[in-house]
Amino acid sequence: MKLGELTWQDADSLSRDIVVLIPTGSLEQHGPHMPLLTDTLIVTAVAEAVEARIADKVLLTPTVWLGASGHHLAFAGSLSASMSSYVETIQAIVQSLLPHGFHKFYVLNGHGGNTDLNSIAMRELKQRNPTATFGHSGYFAFCTDVVAAVLEGPQKEMRHACESEASLGLHLFPQLVRRDKLRDDGLKTEPSLKGMVHFFDEMTVEGSLGFATLATAEKGAKIFSAAVDGVVTELTAVADGYVLKGYF
Amino acid sequence: MKLGELTWQDADSLSRDIVVLIPTGSLEQHGPHMPLLTDTLIVTAVAEAVEARIADKVLLTPTVWLGASGHHLAFAGSLSASMSSYVETIQAIVQSLLPHGFHKFYVLNGHGGNTDLNSIAMRELKQRNPTATFGHSGYFAFCTDVVAAVLEGPQKEMRHACESEASLGLHLFPQLVRRDKLRDDGLKTEPSLKGMVHFFDEMTVEGSLGFATLATAEKGAKIFSAAVDGVVTELTAVADGYVLKGYF
Amino acid sequence: MKLGELTWQDADSLSRDIVVLIPTGSLEQHGPHMPLLTDTLIVTAVAEAVEARIADKVLLTPTVWLGASGHHLAFAGSLSASMSSYVETIQAIVQSLLPHGFHKFYVLNGHGGNTDLNSIAMRELKQRNPTATFGHSGYFAFCTDVVAAVLEGPQKEMRHACESEASLGLHLFPQLVRRDKLRDDGLKTEPSLKGMVHFFDEMTVEGSLGFATLATAEKGAKIFSAAVDGVVTELTAVADGYVLKGYF
Amino acid sequence: MKLGELTWQDADSLSRDIVVLIPTGSLEQHGPHMPLLTDTLIVTAVAEAVEARIADKVLLTPTVWLGASGHHLAFAGSLSASMSSYVETIQAIVQSLLPHGFHKFYVLNGHGGNTDLNSIAMRELKQRNPTATFGHSGYFAFCTDVVAAVLEGPQKEMRHACESEASLGLHLFPQLVRRDKLRDDGLKTEPSLKGMVHFFDEMTVEGSLGFATLATAEKGAKIFSAAVDGVVTELTAVADGYVLKGYF
Amino acid sequence: MKLGELTWQDADSLSRDIVVLIPTGSLEQHGPHMPLLTDTLIVTAVAEAVEARIADKVLLTPTVWLGASGHHLAFAGSLSASMSSYVETIQAIVQSLLPHGFHKFYVLNGHGGNTDLNSIAMRELKQRNPTATFGHSGYFAFCTDVVAAVLEGPQKEMRHACESEASLGLHLFPQLVRRDKLRDDGLKTEPSLKGMVHFFDEMTVEGSLGFATLATAEKGAKIFSAAVDGVVTELTAVADGYVLKGYF
Amino acid sequence: MKLGELTWQDADSLSRDIVVLIPTGSLEQHGPHMPLLTDTLIVTAVAEAVEARIADKVLLTPTVWLGASGHHLAFAGSLSASMSSYVETIQAIVQSLLPHGFHKFYVLNGHGGNTDLNSIAMRELKQRNPTATFGHSGYFAFCTDVVAAVLEGPQKEMRHACESEASLGLHLFPQLVRRDKLRDDGLKTEPSLKGMVHFFDEMTVEGSLGFATLATAEKGAKIFSAAVDGVVTELTAVADGYVLKGYF
Repeated sequence: MKLGELTWQDADSLSRDIVVLIPTGSLEQHGPHMPLLTDTLIVTAVAEAVEARIADKVLLTPTVWLGASGHHLAFAGSLSASMSSYVETIQAIVQSLLPHGFHKFYVLNGHGGNTDLNSIAMRELKQRNPTATFGHSGYFAFCTDVVAAVLEGPQKEMRHACESEASLGLHLFPQLVRRDKLRDDGLKTEPSLKGMVHFFDEMTVEGSLGFATLATAEKGAKIFSAAVDGVVTELTAVADGYVLKGYF
Repeated sequence: MKLGELTWQDADSLSRDIVVLIPTGSLEQHGPHMPLLTDTLIVTAVAEAVEARIADKVLLTPTVWLGASGHHLAFAGSLSASMSSYVETIQAIVQSLLPHGFHKFYVLNGHGGNTDLNSIAMRELKQRNPTATFGHSGYFAFCTDVVAAVLEGPQKEMRHACESEASLGLHLFPQLVRRDKLRDDGLKTEPSLKGMVHFFDEMTVEGSLGFATLATAEKGAKIFSAAVDGVVTELTAVADGYVLKGYF
Repeated sequence: MKLGELTWQDADSLSRDIVVLIPTGSLEQHGPHMPLLTDTLIVTAVAEAVEARIADKVLLTPTVWLGASGHHLAFAGSLSASMSSYVETIQAIVQSLLPHGFHKFYVLNGHGGNTDLNSIAMRELKQRNPTATFGHSGYFAFCTDVVAAVLEGPQKEMRHACESEASLGLHLFPQLVRRDKLRDDGLKTEPSLKGMVHFFDEMTVEGSLGFATLATAEKGAKIFSAAVDGVVTELTAVADGYVLKGYF
Repeated sequence: MKLGELTWQDADSLSRDIVVLIPTGSLEQHGPHMPLLTDTLIVTAVAEAVEARIADKVLLTPTVWLGASGHHLAFAGSLSASMSSYVETIQAIVQSLLPHGFHKFYVLNGHGGNTDLNSIAMRELKQRNPTATFGHSGYFAFCTDVVAAVLEGPQKEMRHACESEASLGLHLFPQLVRRDKLRDDGLKTEPSLKGMVHFFDEMTVEGSLGFATLATAEKGAKIFSAAVDGVVTELTAVADGYVLKGYF
Repeated sequence: MKLGELTWQDADSLSRDIVVLIPTGSLEQHGPHMPLLTDTLIVTAVAEAVEARIADKVLLTPTVWLGASGHHLAFAGSLSASMSSYVETIQAIVQSLLPHGFHKFYVLNGHGGNTDLNSIAMRELKQRNPTATFGHSGYFAFCTDVVAAVLEGPQKEMRHACESEASLGLHLFPQLVRRDKLRDDGLKTEPSLKGMVHFFDEMTVEGSLGFATLATAEKGAKIFSAAVDGVVTELTAVADGYVLKGYF
Repeated sequence: MKLGELTWQDADSLSRDIVVLIPTGSLEQHGPHMPLLTDTLIVTAVAEAVEARIADKVLLTPTVWLGASGHHLAFAGSLSASMSSYVETIQAIVQSLLPHGFHKFYVLNGHGGNTDLNSIAMRELKQRNPTATFGHSGYFAFCTDVVAAVLEGPQKEMRHACESEASLGLHLFPQLVRRDKLRDDGLKTEPSLKGMVHFFDEMTVEGSLGFATLATAEKGAKIFSAAVDGVVTELTAVADGYVLKGYF
């Protein structure tokens, strides 16, 4: 169900075992070839496709489109929430629904820069509401195998405005992708280091990471399909119930 | 221009005299007859119509759809930001753009519960950035005359899920309005008092205020048109420049 | 009752239906002709006159004299609370008394810049304490008709250090009003705009808005009397009880 | 000078070497015999007497009457700021004046529960404004010798609503002191301990500490005079200048 | 260099290209067999061994031993910082040193629950200080290959109080490891899910994850050695300098 | 008991009447002759000696080594927590243990700059947990008589890096004291003032206050012994119980 389209009486009539699904995106630079709202458009498309498949198991909120994008602010047009307001926004959504008995919440993320904060938002909520159910993941975590299989460039994982994201864009919103500006980009430390924090104005030339010149709509369709399938499987289990058992 | 559809290079090529337009809505109960996302849908429609009319003068962000709706939380499905996270969200959008030279910002509000907070957000921003230009108003402030003229019920001002909002809904998103559930509602203090704070579970029976049974799409079209015209006039002046002079 | 003059045992012996009355003012520039403490002096005078009339229905706290006055800070001597500390101060007063059973609270405001924040303070308190009673209003909301009737200048509403406030000053604290410096002042946008945020160093020459040269103590006495009458009526109903009923 | 009585132009014409004097009090229980506003009344009287003596060296703000009184909240009528809002209130006063060039600030305290927080407020301000001058002290720190000399009871230091404070009350506001309810009170740990935190509902029977039955207006006059003299000496040196030199 | 052992003059004489190394641990339950301070003891040992190897390249602070351990609080004795105070603590250390010209900072983490927060702390610092160098990593990220090679149980990655951590304990502080209580533990979701947030009282029986019964000091020595080598290599490059170049 | 060395099962088996002992220190400049970690080293030594004497009455946490040291930040190497994060850190430790039934907490302080904040931390905790027991004191409060007796210089109270602290250093960690750099230092206001806030770069030449050239290990041993004895007596009474009675 799409929460925004319901009346309050509709919402009140729902099963409390439904999973509240909160997509999180961003509005930030995606290189010279993709629109600022890229992450939001993709994760919203995934979430809506999931809702269309299992509407009775999912209560979909609008996408939290203002992400934690401080590492992109050197590029004009990028917007970033503060860390604290981002976390509070996610938590406010959950805390509004908990008193009405909804008790299963899942954040579906479309922007890597939100990952840490989604984790923190959920951990704090779990501390305050230990009997409720909380989950979060990037949609990209459900399609790593397909991504690795379909990408042709040397970068086999999803990065920022890369072959993979650009393919998703060509599949989902081709009118907003600048095919004439598709670009390969991305610097690395020399010597190789594990833990350095660099912002995108340091580690790219024009804002993207990876081999976007190899993007195609067909690759995007495959990646999208895998992501939707994975999220459907995950959320179905959350809605229907799962147990903790056996040795790890 | 729609910010989300631009690349960062597009954004960087814009005139810095463009007005950044930030619509603010809510996701909260609107009686038995209107969807939870009503305020967001209306203000987004107004903002997009304005942008379509004066695209070179306006840089439109996505709508901040999570409003300050604590007074509706007794009704299932309503969501509310905390006061502080709402204010920080608005401010974060502005603060992301200020370093790139954008200096005119206008919040267009679609939810009465946000008014105080939009004011505070803008006042604080003005303190920190005294040479920048800040404005905010509800779209409803631009159509009070038309509202008073077209409404047939005894309530001649726009209220929550009333004849006026329901008319806008029938004009803009008729498929989401429950015509069979249109309802007149709303209690008042006896004796009459000016300053009491009541929440919607106290001052309505089913969540709406006013005479929604009288709503029509035609009334909605007139109100919408007046709001768009008013906002276009306001923002054109902000973009083109205005002065302070004469006695008040 | 004046809370500050009671012992704790006196306070403990009061009826819990008494209305806790919290006046809020400011210490900020009021043009070349009025003292910085103007708002505080006026609202305190109104509140004390109300308390003198209905002492058994009102528990009067000292005036919160540090208001939200960021828009006046360009003028030397003006003080401003931060938004958050102002709100917390109001809430702390209420939260100190709630555990002892006091459950009716009314903020009487004397400074326009506090209005948004009083609203937010009360809304948050209502969310946390849904069965308690909260109200707030400017004293000026109770005398708009008299103000419109007695003012001779073209500005018929109460503004900052205007004909109306200066008249109140001449009535209540004439020794602190500089009759030789009474001044007409105040700029407006051209073309006319609804929503722009301007500070007093932008929209006045010397800090006041309106036609203070027309002020008289007699006008002040009439305005004061109307304000006191209005607040007495409002608070009597809050103390004695009121109901919500009928259609709005 | 009394800041609140000045116009902004008066304030702007002052020497920037004047000491901004900020009195801090409380509104909290003071036993069965003294009014809730005791601390505020005393410190305000001291501060006003100081201002009357050295008006050109001191810029006196209104008293911050809402103190940190959590340890008294078990007694009806007591009010307490939160720790953070109290500190922010003090700092907001200072930060409003710093940009206009005022650079000497002194907090004169009348309530022991504020001492820690005044210290913290000043230390943080000093970190942010290392070239400005900050001081704070209780008025009671300037009259310890006289207090020890005039008190007849076994408690020779100023405590809460004790022989000393009650004497000050009989000197300064006799109409608000309940002579018929003067009371000796105050428990101690057995065995004796240095560092335990106890609130007044634990360590008194009716809220006061010490031997108030021995209070007289004459003792109060002597204590008051000593406090005023001490503060005058301190602030005169701050206004006129002092140096740091010699070995500690 | 160990910062705590230096005088301020020693610190002031250091090269500003030295890497400030901040270890972060926890004090939280580690099953029936390991002490609460396990993470702190291990990461401190690694950091001290690194400092011993490259003392002129590393300025070692004491370990931040209070971690983010909300997911362990159901077990007695576990302590947890709030998310915000943890982040502020890390940032305060950095912000104290930045004004003195130190500009390279690396957080070495010993507790998985701190990872998100270390990331956020560093990202915020980078936004405020874009020309400074920030890095962070778990010591465990430098020994994944050795861990996979030496572990005999079916769990080949480092987990909480597992074969790997218990081996490190037997190597570094055998007197604090309860050999008689070594335990295999850890539940998993069925069906398998990616993103669920579970606390240790839900997903273990006695608090540990993995096959601690297989732990030996020899394995611990190998893991420790690999971690130290890896961190030495990383920090040497940070101290000596590195560049960003080439395609990612 | 040393908390960090216990398993959670050990902790869970303890008597809930044990006193949780939280030492607080600093990492800040201590003149040219003492290490930055001086306060932490001393207070940890006292706390460990106390724990060794009455292990069954005390549950000792690691030392909170990052203190509030803003007044020392002008000297390289000094670190300071923010006021709020310091307070939250102390409170987080307490709040982690309260739900498990521990109800007696004592902060033993080794750094004067923490005193105000320890007080505030404990007062707030007491407000939230009125039936629990809270105490705090500097270790130096227990040895004032011995300090006054053994010091030979004109300064008879413990100050910063003075004869007393340097003597403790020579007793406890002589290898870290620079005997060749022992220094007498410390400026005072002229004329003498009570309440001024000065930082150490203003009121010393090289960072210390007092007559460190007179320090000896023998004096340090006596001071240390007195401090340990005093704390043992205090905490024994807290663990075994005490009452409030008699007149103050």
